[in-house]
Amino acid sequence: MIYLTRRERFNAAHRLFKEGWSDEKNFEVFGKCSNPNWHGHNYELFVTIKGEVNPETGFLINLKQLSAILNEKVIIKMDHKNLNLDVGFMAGKIPSAENIAIAIWNEIEIEINRHNCKLHCVKVVETENNSIKYYGKN
Amino acid sequence: MIYLTRRERFNAAHRLFKEGWSDEKNFEVFGKCSNPNWHGHNYELFVTIKGEVNPETGFLINLKQLSAILNEKVIIKMDHKNLNLDVGFMAGKIPSAENIAIAIWNEIEIEINRHNCKLHCVKVVETENNSIKYYGKN
Amino acid sequence: MIYLTRRERFNAAHRLFKEGWSDEKNFEVFGKCSNPNWHGHNYELFVTIKGEVNPETGFLINLKQLSAILNEKVIIKMDHKNLNLDVGFMAGKIPSAENIAIAIWNEIEIEINRHNCKLHCVKVVETENNSIKYYGKN
Amino acid sequence: MIYLTRRERFNAAHRLFKEGWSDEKNFEVFGKCSNPNWHGHNYELFVTIKGEVNPETGFLINLKQLSAILNEKVIIKMDHKNLNLDVGFMAGKIPSAENIAIAIWNEIEIEINRHNCKLHCVKVVETENNSIKYYGKN
Amino acid sequence: MIYLTRRERFNAAHRLFKEGWSDEKNFEVFGKCSNPNWHGHNYELFVTIKGEVNPETGFLINLKQLSAILNEKVIIKMDHKNLNLDVGFMAGKIPSAENIAIAIWNEIEIEINRHNCKLHCVKVVETENNSIKYYGKN
Amino acid sequence: MIYLTRRERFNAAHRLFKEGWSDEKNFEVFGKCSNPNWHGHNYELFVTIKGEVNPETGFLINLKQLSAILNEKVIIKMDHKNLNLDVGFMAGKIPSAENIAIAIWNEIEIEINRHNCKLHCVKVVETENNSIKYYGKN
Repeated sequence: MIYLTRRERFNAAHRLFKEGWSDEKNFEVFGKCSNPNWHGHNYELFVTIKGEVNPETGFLINLKQLSAILNEKVIIKMDHKNLNLDVGFMAGKIPSAENIAIAIWNEIEIEINRHNCKLHCVKVVETENNSIKYYGKN
Repeated sequence: MIYLTRRERFNAAHRLFKEGWSDEKNFEVFGKCSNPNWHGHNYELFVTIKGEVNPETGFLINLKQLSAILNEKVIIKMDHKNLNLDVGFMAGKIPSAENIAIAIWNEIEIEINRHNCKLHCVKVVETENNSIKYYGKN
Repeated sequence: MIYLTRRERFNAAHRLFKEGWSDEKNFEVFGKCSNPNWHGHNYELFVTIKGEVNPETGFLINLKQLSAILNEKVIIKMDHKNLNLDVGFMAGKIPSAENIAIAIWNEIEIEINRHNCKLHCVKVVETENNSIKYYGKN
Repeated sequence: MIYLTRRERFNAAHRLFKEGWSDEKNFEVFGKCSNPNWHGHNYELFVTIKGEVNPETGFLINLKQLSAILNEKVIIKMDHKNLNLDVGFMAGKIPSAENIAIAIWNEIEIEINRHNCKLHCVKVVETENNSIKYYGKN
Repeated sequence: MIYLTRRERFNAAHRLFKEGWSDEKNFEVFGKCSNPNWHGHNYELFVTIKGEVNPETGFLINLKQLSAILNEKVIIKMDHKNLNLDVGFMAGKIPSAENIAIAIWNEIEIEINRHNCKLHCVKVVETENNSIKYYGKN
Repeated sequence: MIYLTRRERFNAAHRLFKEGWSDEKNFEVFGKCSNPNWHGHNYELFVTIKGEVNPETGFLINLKQLSAILNEKVIIKMDHKNLNLDVGFMAGKIPSAENIAIAIWNEIEIEINRHNCKLHCVKVVETENNSIKYYGKN
């Protein structure tokens, strides 16, 4: 079993707030992240997959294939977007780094597991100080 | 003459577009940066000042003073904000990294030059691949 | 289950030596790290906690709360200090990165586990080449 | 149980190709990595070991010993070398990051496990976007 | 006057040696960089241009145009190549970082200066410890 | 004219204080940096030299020579030392980053200028947020 990690990046706007709460309540819970006019981040996405090395190629997966999946399923939908408004698979979710990581996992798991490997971890780095890792439900 | 650089950070949303242009024209010039629902970045700000070392303290400037100026004049106004909508000193300007650097220079120059040193350079890092340096008008 | 990592930093002096050993013996074991006049590091602390995402907020923990705990329990006590002389919870311990990581774990575990989450890992980065991870006793 | 990670670096040339395949077939599978005249990387190697802290020294292992093992067994053999042609323990293997990580594990495991600790992980970083982790056969 | 820096990357093999010198003489001067079977690096290229901000767009240059120039003139020719054998504009030159920086300057200067800006600096980072800057002949 | 930068590192303890001032006065000016029991940093030193490329070798300077000078004149004297107590060429100076940069310049200028190149800049990075550049007296 070997683990391969691919990094991709996307720059996006978001706002942390709960619909139905007042601005004051939202500010109390989410602080400046609840700014009604949005703010944004340079997100780094690290996707780790695991499996056996193909003895013919020395590869767990062809990185071009992995990168293509991540671009098609995630980056093209999130890069230079508003995570609250523009991203179908985030609809109705508060775009915290936690929820972003879980949502990305759900977007890519099936497709990745088709390639003789298994999705192991989705890591979302929001700032140099804060990051989230999600390993799926089990 | 010695040069001191202080880094500060702010996370903000922005949109590159020219009022009066159609969405198509804006997309042609600004590409995905013109997304009407905004996107955002983790900006890094590097401010460089120059002057003589104070022989009593070994300091060009007390870093706490410099950091306080940058926070009061820049960070508190830009961090977790929308650079198009929320920042008084960016009003009417396209928030490109170029214009951000120039605007920050203009915000801090007078205050910094009061401290026995001179503002030398404002550097704005928008992504790991793109950055701007501005050294003032001369 | 989701994992959140927060980075904090502290700059400290220390000396690796065993009381009762001669300077020669200390130098033999600890090398230049046993310099009697101390040396120091920019330490990076990465604290990882795990738990369930709160469906109301999208948060595992409010980062401000986590950061406040780390500052109160660790950073304020270690930053700009001498790890051999100034830090109560390091008293009598050789301040190797290993012992620092374990001591920080013991300082913060109870407080963190009060917040609907569990401490998962304490990582201490001493230089760009050397780091320690501790996951607790089990 | 505590985990210590040591970083070392080596700069090397390599080519990904399968002997017996045509250049076209190699290019189809390995893309530009199959360039017959080689290309190269600044590899970063992160070796993680695990074990108990020695109460006398506060160390899991003396870093100088660990670094010496890595230099003798790996760095001196791979740094400024051609991974296809110059490295005995890579002979006959396609020098993918996956195979490099496994081969390094096999080179160092016995020696490291002699030092009151166990090899836990070999991580090879090939570019800022791609890395491999290997934890051994079990 | 404002300065914009764009980063691009290329991974390449090279060998430092002087034709006509013996292997011993080459090793004496170039050390392990003269390994006859090549070695390689992850090169980072930072290109800085200078000029006036276009008041219509807030741009010094459209980054897509700059990136396209760098890719067409440099990256496509150097990435995953052997700098001694595969790169036309390096022919007959020892591919030291110094010579790489000068050669890249000469490849891109005319094209960049066509875009209402001037090439200011070419920086080549060979390892985390070594880099070169070239500002042209004047 | 070409510019080459070499990075070296040293880990040291220091204390910012002025002899003759009370602890209160020192704390007022230097804050927590005046802690009587010292604190410390992982310093990064970037030394930039300038000159013409040797057409025989493609080098401005042989990096091994430059690294050897920096190690002999600076690193061996500052690494794992107390900058107030252990470093001859810092005696009587407040070890601010400013004074460290100037002192290192004075230590290495003559030796470097013997090698067909000139010292251009000494940069000292004290933390990820603070750095100093010194270009000599002129």
